[in-house]
Amino acid sequence: MTSGSDSPADVEFPRVDLPDLEARVAAEERQRDLTKPAGSLGRLEDLGCWVAACQGEVPPHPFRRPRVVVFAGDHGVARHGVSAYPPEVTAQMVANLSGGGAAVNVLAAAAGAGVRVVDMAVESDTSPEVSAFKIRRSSGSIDREDALTHDETVRAIEAGRTLADREVDEGADLLVAGDMGIGNTTPATVLIATLTSTEPVAAVGRGTGVDDAGWMRKVTAIRDAMWRARPHVRNPVALLRVAGGADFAAMAGFLAQAAVRRTPVILDGVVVTAAAMVAEELAPGAARWWVSGHRSAEPAHDIALRHLRLEPIVDLGMRLGEGSGAVTALPVLQGAVAILSQMATFSEAGVSTRDEIIPAATD
Amino acid sequence: MTSGSDSPADVEFPRVDLPDLEARVAAEERQRDLTKPAGSLGRLEDLGCWVAACQGEVPPHPFRRPRVVVFAGDHGVARHGVSAYPPEVTAQMVANLSGGGAAVNVLAAAAGAGVRVVDMAVESDTSPEVSAFKIRRSSGSIDREDALTHDETVRAIEAGRTLADREVDEGADLLVAGDMGIGNTTPATVLIATLTSTEPVAAVGRGTGVDDAGWMRKVTAIRDAMWRARPHVRNPVALLRVAGGADFAAMAGFLAQAAVRRTPVILDGVVVTAAAMVAEELAPGAARWWVSGHRSAEPAHDIALRHLRLEPIVDLGMRLGEGSGAVTALPVLQGAVAILSQMATFSEAGVSTRDEIIPAATD
Repeated sequence: MTSGSDSPADVEFPRVDLPDLEARVAAEERQRDLTKPAGSLGRLEDLGCWVAACQGEVPPHPFRRPRVVVFAGDHGVARHGVSAYPPEVTAQMVANLSGGGAAVNVLAAAAGAGVRVVDMAVESDTSPEVSAFKIRRSSGSIDREDALTHDETVRAIEAGRTLADREVDEGADLLVAGDMGIGNTTPATVLIATLTSTEPVAAVGRGTGVDDAGWMRKVTAIRDAMWRARPHVRNPVALLRVAGGADFAAMAGFLAQAAVRRTPVILDGVVVTAAAMVAEELAPGAARWWVSGHRSAEPAHDIALRHLRLEPIVDLGMRLGEGSGAVTALPVLQGAVAILSQMATFSEAGVSTRDEIIPAATD
Repeated sequence: MTSGSDSPADVEFPRVDLPDLEARVAAEERQRDLTKPAGSLGRLEDLGCWVAACQGEVPPHPFRRPRVVVFAGDHGVARHGVSAYPPEVTAQMVANLSGGGAAVNVLAAAAGAGVRVVDMAVESDTSPEVSAFKIRRSSGSIDREDALTHDETVRAIEAGRTLADREVDEGADLLVAGDMGIGNTTPATVLIATLTSTEPVAAVGRGTGVDDAGWMRKVTAIRDAMWRARPHVRNPVALLRVAGGADFAAMAGFLAQAAVRRTPVILDGVVVTAAAMVAEELAPGAARWWVSGHRSAEPAHDIALRHLRLEPIVDLGMRLGEGSGAVTALPVLQGAVAILSQMATFSEAGVSTRDEIIPAATD
C-alpha cells in the first residue's frame, strides 16, 4: 500500500449477499396466519420479516447478543469554532462510556445490549483497553487538509472490519455503530452533502448546539471541505481520506463487514449514517442489512436516509449520537421479532379468519 | 340511580391533582447535569421529567409493575356491515388474550408488563375469570338506538374505576388500557367527531380493514349516531350511554381513576383515546397523567390527539388496538426513566460542562 495512491483495490469487500428472500416470503405468510388482521401491526410486521430474512429463519429467534461499538475520534476542524464543545470533551466522554455512565450505556443496558468503545483518533491519550486500534491523534482539519493519509484510511477501514468480525465471532447477532467526537457532524455533513450533491446550507445543522456565529463558521468549513472532497465522489476510500477521519473510516468498514457477515444492523444518527453511505459505496448492497433506528434533528441525516431509502423506526428529536437513537429503537425491533415467534396463529387460537367468514369477491 | 335521568352526579370523580411540578423542575435540572448536551435526547428528556412529576420522585424509579387491562365488548352496529369481521371474533379473541397468544400479550411480555382482559359486553359467553364485570351482551347499535341504559352506563364506569383501583392497590405504577371488539372503531369515531365537531367523512377510517362499500356504510352509521349523540355533547355520561358502550364507559372510568390515583398511563389508539376524551370530560385534568403511545392509522385518532394536545411516542402505522401501540412505546418510556436515574452527571464523570469551557455571553 502506498500512501497517496488512493487505490480502492487496497480495500476490497467480498460481494454482499441479499437477505434470504425465501425466509422473507415465509415470514410474510406467517404474519397472515397470526391472530390479527393482515397489516394491522404496520411497520412491526415489516421489521419482523426483515429480521427473518437476515437470519434466514422463520420465525426469527430473539437477538441473543446485540452489541454496540462506539467509534471515538477527534477532528481538527473542531479547533475552528464549528462546535459548542472543545475537543477535550471527547476523551472525557470516552472514559464515561468505558465507565458505563453515558446515555448509550444506559439505553443499551435497558434493551439488553452490550457496549464497547474504541478510540480511533482521539486527540488525547485514552486507556489501553480502548486504544488498541488507534490510528492517530485527531484527524486533519478537513476544510484545509486531508483527514488522513491513504495508509491510515486503509488501516482504519480494516480496523472496523476486524471489530465487526470479532463481534460476530463472539456471537453478536445484531450490531449498532455509535459515534463520539466533538465536531464530527461537520465531516458527516460533508460526506452526505458530497454524495448527494446537496448545497451546504440545506444540510448543515446545529450539531450538539452551536450558536449562530458557529453555525456560519460550520457552513463555511463544510463548503471548503466539500470543494476538496468533490473530485473524489466516486472513490469511497479517497473520500474517507480527504473528508472523513479514522472514526468514519472504521465505522464504514464495520458497517460493510456486518453485511458481509450477514448480520443485521440498526443505524444511528447523522454521523453513523454518513459512514453508512460510504460503506454502501464500498460494499454495494450492504444497506439491505440495515434499518434506520431514528431520525435525528440534523437536516443532513434526513437527506442521507432518503438517499439510502431507509425509514427510521422512531422520530424523537434526538441528536446525541453514541448509538443512542439506535438502541432506543432496539426494543421495537425486539418486539417485532417476538410477534413473529410468539403470537398464536388463527388455527392454534381457534379464531376465525376473514377468509372463512367472508366469501372472496368474484367479480 | 334512576335509569334515563342522565345525571352526571351519579358518577363523580374527586378533583384530579396535577403531577408534581416541583419534581418536574428538579428533573429538568437533573437533565442538565447529565453527561450530554442539554436537550440532545429530545423527547426522551421530556418523557423522563413527566414520569418524575407523576411519581413525585427525582430521579424516577423504574416501573415495578406496568399493567395492561384490555376491555372487550361487542357493538350492535357491527351487525350492520361496518367491519371486516363478524362479532363472533370478539369472544374468540378474548380467549386468545386470556391464553397469551394475542399481539398485546407478546409485546407486553417483551416490555415486562402484565395483561388482564375483562369482558364488559361481549355478545357470547366468556369464561368466568374475565366476565366478573360484564354489563350486558353487546351494546346497542348506536346508529339507531342507545348503546346502554343510564344504569348500565354508571355501572360500567364504576367497573372501570374499580379495575383501576385494584390494579393500583396491587402495586401497578403504570397503566395501559386496551380494547378488543369488532366494530369498536365506529363508536370511537362517533365520540371523537362529536366532541371535536368534526365532519364524519374527515374522521372515518378503515378500522381493521373494511372495504369501500363497508366504509360507506360506516360513514352513514357514524353520521346517524352523531345526530343522536350531538345533543349530549356536554354530558359525558349521556354520551357514553347514547354513543359509547359498556367497554367505552369502563375505559373512561379506568382512565379517569388512574389520574385520581396519580398513576401514569400510556394511551393506545383510536378506541382508547376516544374513551380518554370522555374521561377528560368526567375528570378534568386527567390528561396530564397520560402520554400517547402511538399514532394509529385511523384519522379520528389524530384528531383526538390534537384535541388532547398529546404527541405520540411512536408512529408505526399500527391499527390493531388491544393496547398494542401503547406497549410498543413502553420500552421508550422505560428508557427515558433509565436515563434520569442511571446516567452519570458531569461532576461524577469528570466531563467538562459547556459553561466551564465557554464564557457566558455578556452583551
